Amino acid sequence: MNNSVFQLEFKVRDYELDLQGIVNNSVYQNYLEHARHEYLLTKHIDFAALHEQQIDLVVSRIEIDYKAPLKSQDSFVVKLSAGKEGNVRIIFHQWIERIPDGKLMIDAKITGVCLKNGRPVRPEEATGIEW
Amino acid sequence: MNNSVFQLEFKVRDYELDLQGIVNNSVYQNYLEHARHEYLLTKHIDFAALHEQQIDLVVSRIEIDYKAPLKSQDSFVVKLSAGKEGNVRIIFHQWIERIPDGKLMIDAKITGVCLKNGRPVRPEEATGIEW
Amino acid sequence: MNNSVFQLEFKVRDYELDLQGIVNNSVYQNYLEHARHEYLLTKHIDFAALHEQQIDLVVSRIEIDYKAPLKSQDSFVVKLSAGKEGNVRIIFHQWIERIPDGKLMIDAKITGVCLKNGRPVRPEEATGIEW
Amino acid sequence: MNNSVFQLEFKVRDYELDLQGIVNNSVYQNYLEHARHEYLLTKHIDFAALHEQQIDLVVSRIEIDYKAPLKSQDSFVVKLSAGKEGNVRIIFHQWIERIPDGKLMIDAKITGVCLKNGRPVRPEEATGIEW
Repeated sequence: MNNSVFQLEFKVRDYELDLQGIVNNSVYQNYLEHARHEYLLTKHIDFAALHEQQIDLVVSRIEIDYKAPLKSQDSFVVKLSAGKEGNVRIIFHQWIERIPDGKLMIDAKITGVCLKNGRPVRPEEATGIEW
Repeated sequence: MNNSVFQLEFKVRDYELDLQGIVNNSVYQNYLEHARHEYLLTKHIDFAALHEQQIDLVVSRIEIDYKAPLKSQDSFVVKLSAGKEGNVRIIFHQWIERIPDGKLMIDAKITGVCLKNGRPVRPEEATGIEW
Repeated sequence: MNNSVFQLEFKVRDYELDLQGIVNNSVYQNYLEHARHEYLLTKHIDFAALHEQQIDLVVSRIEIDYKAPLKSQDSFVVKLSAGKEGNVRIIFHQWIERIPDGKLMIDAKITGVCLKNGRPVRPEEATGIEW
Repeated sequence: MNNSVFQLEFKVRDYELDLQGIVNNSVYQNYLEHARHEYLLTKHIDFAALHEQQIDLVVSRIEIDYKAPLKSQDSFVVKLSAGKEGNVRIIFHQWIERIPDGKLMIDAKITGVCLKNGRPVRPEEATGIEW
């Protein structure tokens, strides 16, 4: 799509911590998803509105490397760059850096597909923009 | 560790669904984690009790292929086999089959590491069993 | 509706614990909701299918007394009795008892309303059964 | 404690929505908890650090009136005022207003207690400040 990096700031919320006092592994997927949806909104792609038109953006594969854990009161930024792979896949490279030291906390590659009435379609067709 | 397959049954709960009417991607990590902890308990490895001894089992990498989505009222089974990779990594192969048709819903590879006071140790040392 | 008590068994999952090592307060609402939906299914009321017909069962008020906290590996049962209050409200009395000692962990009163195209309707009309 | 109103802004994240396309009931407790913890931090009361000293701030009762549902992309503010009730209880009045129209979405009363080694203590003793 383009080479610019989208970024969104968050702060850890205590209900996201597990008994080890660190953010639970599954919660990072929540952070990544929220960042992707906010990114898509900057491209005028509204995940909830598309669903109303029987178009669903779905994740087909996720790879996450957990480098260091986020803890109570940590602030952090989710960074994202997106591009196409083949005809129907969108690749999101997403990573999390702690604020203020910039330490890399997780590094992720998310593969997405556009489904229209349940069948894969080219992202351009589903979203109306070039990837 | 051994070649037997551990399995645990679940039923989808409606609060796990997102606005697409399917289980949210991050929730599968909850299912996988719960199955791993129940598996570890069958090996007399208590995640919460180990934490009290400054031993933490942490996930260092997760790969999930999403094959088909779970929906409201679906029952399913999480299956798991575990083994060692190198000196300090434990690999969990985990997959989810829908009940009763056995359809493969997700397929995952989870890499875990044992930390003692924050440093990696051999799983045998941390858990007291052979892997 | 009737005076019988519906009950559903659960086991605590470690991702539901917070850093205090106890089930996070909000998670009890998940347990209560799942028990209500399973109860409704025994009455042939399908929350997800009703939504497709523009009928939504929504919670208008929740009161929960937290008596004692659930911890890792606890099993418990959510008990429920339901009845009508006035013309449009359904009251769910729900409480959680730990297994096996029967200790009361939480006690809750949930008020629900049926909405059809966003407007309150009599539960009998929305659900097709007597309350 | 004082009569000033603390407030914290949020934006709905799509993973918080359920299949009705509205924020799931239990998620509001997450919002309320995060706002309470941020409020406590302004009073130099650190929930996670207190836990390390065997002091736990726990919720003993929650009452929430759900007035109107938050939806995808809604921004909102959680408002909070706190005070003491009797010797050992802290009362948090918390409510959520949608941005920008100020519509009241939920209204809640949360009762908290300080536990030191599992026994109730006066909030002044546990937290070091006047309530």
